[in-house]
Amino acid sequence: MSFLAALTPLLALERLPRTGWLVAGVAAPESVAAHSLGTALVVLALGPRVRPALDLDRAVSLAVVHDTPEALLTDLPRAAAELLPPGAKAEAEERAAERLLTPLSPEARARFAEFRAQETREARFVRLCDQLHLGVRWIGYRREGARGLGEFRAGLAALDCAEFPPCAELLAEVLAAAHALDGGLDGEREVRAR
Amino acid sequence: MSFLAALTPLLALERLPRTGWLVAGVAAPESVAAHSLGTALVVLALGPRVRPALDLDRAVSLAVVHDTPEALLTDLPRAAAELLPPGAKAEAEERAAERLLTPLSPEARARFAEFRAQETREARFVRLCDQLHLGVRWIGYRREGARGLGEFRAGLAALDCAEFPPCAELLAEVLAAAHALDGGLDGEREVRAR
Amino acid sequence: MSFLAALTPLLALERLPRTGWLVAGVAAPESVAAHSLGTALVVLALGPRVRPALDLDRAVSLAVVHDTPEALLTDLPRAAAELLPPGAKAEAEERAAERLLTPLSPEARARFAEFRAQETREARFVRLCDQLHLGVRWIGYRREGARGLGEFRAGLAALDCAEFPPCAELLAEVLAAAHALDGGLDGEREVRAR
Amino acid sequence: MSFLAALTPLLALERLPRTGWLVAGVAAPESVAAHSLGTALVVLALGPRVRPALDLDRAVSLAVVHDTPEALLTDLPRAAAELLPPGAKAEAEERAAERLLTPLSPEARARFAEFRAQETREARFVRLCDQLHLGVRWIGYRREGARGLGEFRAGLAALDCAEFPPCAELLAEVLAAAHALDGGLDGEREVRAR
Amino acid sequence: MSFLAALTPLLALERLPRTGWLVAGVAAPESVAAHSLGTALVVLALGPRVRPALDLDRAVSLAVVHDTPEALLTDLPRAAAELLPPGAKAEAEERAAERLLTPLSPEARARFAEFRAQETREARFVRLCDQLHLGVRWIGYRREGARGLGEFRAGLAALDCAEFPPCAELLAEVLAAAHALDGGLDGEREVRAR
Amino acid sequence: MSFLAALTPLLALERLPRTGWLVAGVAAPESVAAHSLGTALVVLALGPRVRPALDLDRAVSLAVVHDTPEALLTDLPRAAAELLPPGAKAEAEERAAERLLTPLSPEARARFAEFRAQETREARFVRLCDQLHLGVRWIGYRREGARGLGEFRAGLAALDCAEFPPCAELLAEVLAAAHALDGGLDGEREVRAR
Repeated sequence: MSFLAALTPLLALERLPRTGWLVAGVAAPESVAAHSLGTALVVLALGPRVRPALDLDRAVSLAVVHDTPEALLTDLPRAAAELLPPGAKAEAEERAAERLLTPLSPEARARFAEFRAQETREARFVRLCDQLHLGVRWIGYRREGARGLGEFRAGLAALDCAEFPPCAELLAEVLAAAHALDGGLDGEREVRAR
Repeated sequence: MSFLAALTPLLALERLPRTGWLVAGVAAPESVAAHSLGTALVVLALGPRVRPALDLDRAVSLAVVHDTPEALLTDLPRAAAELLPPGAKAEAEERAAERLLTPLSPEARARFAEFRAQETREARFVRLCDQLHLGVRWIGYRREGARGLGEFRAGLAALDCAEFPPCAELLAEVLAAAHALDGGLDGEREVRAR
Repeated sequence: MSFLAALTPLLALERLPRTGWLVAGVAAPESVAAHSLGTALVVLALGPRVRPALDLDRAVSLAVVHDTPEALLTDLPRAAAELLPPGAKAEAEERAAERLLTPLSPEARARFAEFRAQETREARFVRLCDQLHLGVRWIGYRREGARGLGEFRAGLAALDCAEFPPCAELLAEVLAAAHALDGGLDGEREVRAR
Repeated sequence: MSFLAALTPLLALERLPRTGWLVAGVAAPESVAAHSLGTALVVLALGPRVRPALDLDRAVSLAVVHDTPEALLTDLPRAAAELLPPGAKAEAEERAAERLLTPLSPEARARFAEFRAQETREARFVRLCDQLHLGVRWIGYRREGARGLGEFRAGLAALDCAEFPPCAELLAEVLAAAHALDGGLDGEREVRAR
Repeated sequence: MSFLAALTPLLALERLPRTGWLVAGVAAPESVAAHSLGTALVVLALGPRVRPALDLDRAVSLAVVHDTPEALLTDLPRAAAELLPPGAKAEAEERAAERLLTPLSPEARARFAEFRAQETREARFVRLCDQLHLGVRWIGYRREGARGLGEFRAGLAALDCAEFPPCAELLAEVLAAAHALDGGLDGEREVRAR
Repeated sequence: MSFLAALTPLLALERLPRTGWLVAGVAAPESVAAHSLGTALVVLALGPRVRPALDLDRAVSLAVVHDTPEALLTDLPRAAAELLPPGAKAEAEERAAERLLTPLSPEARARFAEFRAQETREARFVRLCDQLHLGVRWIGYRREGARGLGEFRAGLAALDCAEFPPCAELLAEVLAAAHALDGGLDGEREVRAR
């Protein structure tokens, strides 16, 4: 298969919205591609502070590929995945990754497999960064004026960041910012208070 | 549960895009709600011509509810559904319908169950109308200038409309219009030729 | 006229925004098609509770067609309609319905005529459900963070639901939810309080 | 009334789409405000070439206000206006202008009145420029790939530009560009041929 | 160059968003074209109250052309412009105006030159109206529910309106409206309080 | 500075459109974030085929950060950058990177510096992949129906891929696909011919 034929299906990531936000009432949420890039940036922010040192660039690559199966599967929000039989979503992602990434390169396929297996520290770190990008985005949408996003709090508060203290640090910042917003400090006054 | 609490989750249908078009490159496709309404209008167009007579209004109700589970599940395009284990999507829809429609009314729940069972003529007719709305939309997007939608042809051409001759009639019109567009008759010149 | 030629003009309903929201500052409101579907879902929620029993499915059909003239006329918000000579909007809708629905089917045309005449209980019920969908949407947009929508309250509060107690019930829920939002309970905290 | 209270309702012009394009299948058409600005730019392009000389800046002001009533009325496409009783749209625009422009300034109100009366050369020129912006936009959307816009040709071809030769010149360019596009010269190849 | 070739590049103004809002979190801000029209409307609101009298219509023309270079340059928010070498943005605008407006008409080019030079009272007045439209828009977005826009306050509060008292008046109204919004009076309750 | 405060400004990348497409008439182009992710995917496709072997994951990191300054600067299309004084854009990007990436992590800052310096093979490879993503996107938009994008061809055809043969291969595929589209093979028929 040509490079062009391998890359074209992945363009769908640039159009597909993160549907969890859409269902929750954010009218124009970021695309899956934008979320993946955001996850990679969280990796670059937190990764250098992790001890012992991670392979930072490999973690970035894991972030870049971690949602590529959604180019075929679309973004199933958590509530949707929970309605499927156990393991069904993971199995479908595996098939989609095979179809999308094998033509891209064995290395891309391997990065996704490493992420899925969750056996390396880099893979577990990236999964947390994926959730933490959602946390940063949550604060972002709330500061912009979005309301009614309370359902995302529980998932964030339940994250287990014990293995990676910098993740715990960002999570604490996110929850503190949410608390400030809850307390009636809307984005406007918050900005003035800085 | 209050009426308001039962109706609110269904508002997501008005925001969720029909993702199959999005993946295929239509930048701003219709919402799931708009597609459901469109299906109901196809029912109103073809239904009165079906012999023996259908219960037209009940068929309209089936069309109205047929995609309501997507308020929780989002719209999984066919290629995505095929990556899931067999029956997984139907099972998830069943659970989503239970959660969304039971609080709405037993009648709404019953309409969805009738649609799923595909045992009444009305239910089978509505499933065809669902596909035929996709066909009308396909012609619509192509006449507006969208290209690269060839993959939808096979699914349409394979529809078995034998039970409902008016469905076969609309399908033939759709395929003829597609053929005209293939032949270089773009929407512009077609309009002039009318 | 072919089925396809009759259905194509109605695709505009999927694109036309509900302009009242747009004027009031909701950047991406639902389409006319989505509103019509939403009205049909309100019918399915409240209709089974009405006594004596309504013809529920016929009421759903009335909801499906009730705004189809807007495919030609576009959605004139109330303030716009009031600037037209008395009766002008209704007359134009009548002409648009003639042009759009007669080619669809006599049954579709008859459903619209029944809705317009407001003589059957089903027709009067659907008109209330049309307004109540606006009420549900109003709460929905406000919970998402939209502000400045106070003008919609008066119209809702003035609805006469005496003929249909379930409509009065949903209206009361809508006004109570609005009151909670007024009191500084934004969507965020409301969710936490559930 | 404060300046702010007079200006705020006009912000709706920035959100309201030009619905004629929307109905014809352009998914994201320009706003009414953008069209008004575009009309003013057509005035600035053609006006200096009109003989005897026009009051160019006053013509620009007429263009700026000519569609302001749509902040209340929304943009009724031609097909919609023709379904209203004769004169109904003009009457409604008059009322909307009274409500919107009188609080702005007597001068703004006077500019609109001059445009409506169509008695000065500037007013007649601006009405043509309004139509010609639609013509330029038509070519623009078609070059971008939009199809199915044939219905706009007749209205343009019927424009009477006799009083203003530069308008006739631009109209001829628009129709020639449309003809080139009809002939299979899509925007792509046209660009290469330049 | 033909009129059509001169007008076509300016269509980009209708699509380009005002990026300052986008960066600040307004998901669907007005286009550059809509902002220019809005500036012209502020001119029409305040201009007639300025003493000694301005050439109102010429000021409107200045407003219409003042951002046309952005059709080539795009809208650089203030923070971006400050990262460029001093004078770089103005120089680039000059070049863009030469390329875009000279083919339009010498008059259009002259209006832009007058605006840039900031030597006439009309030019200085329009620059203030440009900023004041941003102020009106700021209140508009905040009343609609946008939050996190506190950064715009400082720029507005620092405007020197001494030369044009009506500008000072509108600015005071904008700041008072912002203050009311800060005080927890969201758009909803504000509307009720009127 | 907190992690959250460092990450928040980068959310703008998810909203900012790639303005070059917007100016050229693509109504809803990808965001800067989506483009950066797309560049990283091109790196993962081509990188493994480069000889001698590149540090693939470091190249992915360079791709992830290469456009981050645009969170402050916005996306200046090539035509805009050429109107600025020589070096002005690069200088501004340097300042923006300093402000945005230094708070993120020294590693993120270093990756950007490496990309800018264009001294390593990875940096030069990523610059080509950046252009090649534009090429893939160009084919994507054209296959979807966009027209009038001929101006992008010259920039692509002029790319010097001599150092990296896989880049030359993808470029050849892109230009061949463009040629096929020029020849009247629109996306529709192409799909059928596969």
